[in-house]
Amino acid sequence: LSSSSSSPRMDPQTKFMEFPHVSAPIRDLMLGLVSSVETHLGSSLLPCSLPPDVQYYQNPNGNAEGTVFVRSAIPSSPVDFILGSWINCKLPSGGALNIASLSTYLKPSTNAPNFLIEVIQSTPTSLVLILDMPPRKDLVLYPEYLKTFYEDTELDRHRQLLEKLPEVTPYSSPSLYIRALISPTAILVRIEAEAGEITRIDEIIRDNLSPIANEMIEVWLSLCASVDKEVGEAEMAYLEKRDLITKTKTIEIDLGTNIPRLFGQEIADRVLGVLRGVFNV
Amino acid sequence: LSSSSSSPRMDPQTKFMEFPHVSAPIRDLMLGLVSSVETHLGSSLLPCSLPPDVQYYQNPNGNAEGTVFVRSAIPSSPVDFILGSWINCKLPSGGALNIASLSTYLKPSTNAPNFLIEVIQSTPTSLVLILDMPPRKDLVLYPEYLKTFYEDTELDRHRQLLEKLPEVTPYSSPSLYIRALISPTAILVRIEAEAGEITRIDEIIRDNLSPIANEMIEVWLSLCASVDKEVGEAEMAYLEKRDLITKTKTIEIDLGTNIPRLFGQEIADRVLGVLRGVFNV
Repeated sequence: LSSSSSSPRMDPQTKFMEFPHVSAPIRDLMLGLVSSVETHLGSSLLPCSLPPDVQYYQNPNGNAEGTVFVRSAIPSSPVDFILGSWINCKLPSGGALNIASLSTYLKPSTNAPNFLIEVIQSTPTSLVLILDMPPRKDLVLYPEYLKTFYEDTELDRHRQLLEKLPEVTPYSSPSLYIRALISPTAILVRIEAEAGEITRIDEIIRDNLSPIANEMIEVWLSLCASVDKEVGEAEMAYLEKRDLITKTKTIEIDLGTNIPRLFGQEIADRVLGVLRGVFNV
Repeated sequence: LSSSSSSPRMDPQTKFMEFPHVSAPIRDLMLGLVSSVETHLGSSLLPCSLPPDVQYYQNPNGNAEGTVFVRSAIPSSPVDFILGSWINCKLPSGGALNIASLSTYLKPSTNAPNFLIEVIQSTPTSLVLILDMPPRKDLVLYPEYLKTFYEDTELDRHRQLLEKLPEVTPYSSPSLYIRALISPTAILVRIEAEAGEITRIDEIIRDNLSPIANEMIEVWLSLCASVDKEVGEAEMAYLEKRDLITKTKTIEIDLGTNIPRLFGQEIADRVLGVLRGVFNV
């Protein structure tokens, strides 16, 4: 059975879907979003075909593990692929860093925005949340795109609602590129409860954040992922170029920084190599 | 002397430069910025040639007045024009709304960012500040532009410094377009002192804000306003198109909303008509 380690038969969703290290409300939130996407897109999504040692990887010390989950869509779908991942890294302090994310990417045959959620938790009473439909066109040059996807959908009310909670404050990504990439209605917040108030964070995720994320994925599925916008040749070339730069920079800034730091260069090369293939960069 | 009201000889800078309704630190800040720009650009700036009833206007009730100050640059300058304005409107409560702004616009012969400061004060103990070098290219599509003008200049440290003050909180423009227009290092903040602490606002403007604004205008003057970047034909067409949309939307959202509301449609038509000419939109 020596071949089993190189090509074992395993359920591709198993490891990613477990979310074994995060709290129940975060797990429920992430699984709910994946389930909405999979239900809506149905058979247009192909099974995850990543190598098993990319779907699940650990560092040599055994104090960090990660998963990647990718389902590409069939050629006729406006969806390119969906990408889920989580990372857990035990900290010397006894705590742990947990990052969970789900992003969806559309093909250049449509110009609609992508979807992104990322939850970064390094203490039990605080987390950073990124929730957005990142635009795929320059909103300054294309005000009607801003109107269609951000004004008419009233996406900003979610951000306003969440920022009313005393535990929620605006968060600035240290990367200027990420700040440029997100939409004007992006939710980028730090949620911080008082020391010891662990259940308060759970409450906010369950009662305040999850309804917003669920509503936003429904907007994305109904407005962005379903309809082909009949993009012309020039616009398709523009979208291809902009998507390529976006994906290259996203890998470089996000996973391309975290994975080498937490897992070492060898594992990083393997995982990031496969991801660059998925991203086609 | 009946002709004097239609074409009087007056110092074009007089009214705008007076800033009669704002506190001394705001006046000093604005005059200091105008002075830096005028000194640096020197004789490449033409005198303000706006009609006198646009340079200074009042509403029929006499409870609101405003000024506009524009100096265009000579054809060989990379600068298109600089635009200053202030508005004062007495409120029924006994207070007043004061808006003071200075913006600078470059020609499509260079791709460098513009400069913008706007101070909006509706109570003696609070104000909203916008201070930025708004980009003239899509930062997502042109990451090297982001690097040159925003990362290498370390503009973000100003925002970080200011936001450390307990009186300073991030501010979201109600306009999604304005949010899309500004750079990732834009300072968009509300400064709010406790009731009665009027001198605290003055202190923050003098000690914290003015040094930042002065440093930023120096960056703009040395990095953006001085060098022609030798832009090619395709890029120039791109800049022309993007600048046109930016200017049209800026008038529509900012002055195009405030002036009719505060001064009535007749005065608004006169002032905005002249401004559309300056903006070439």
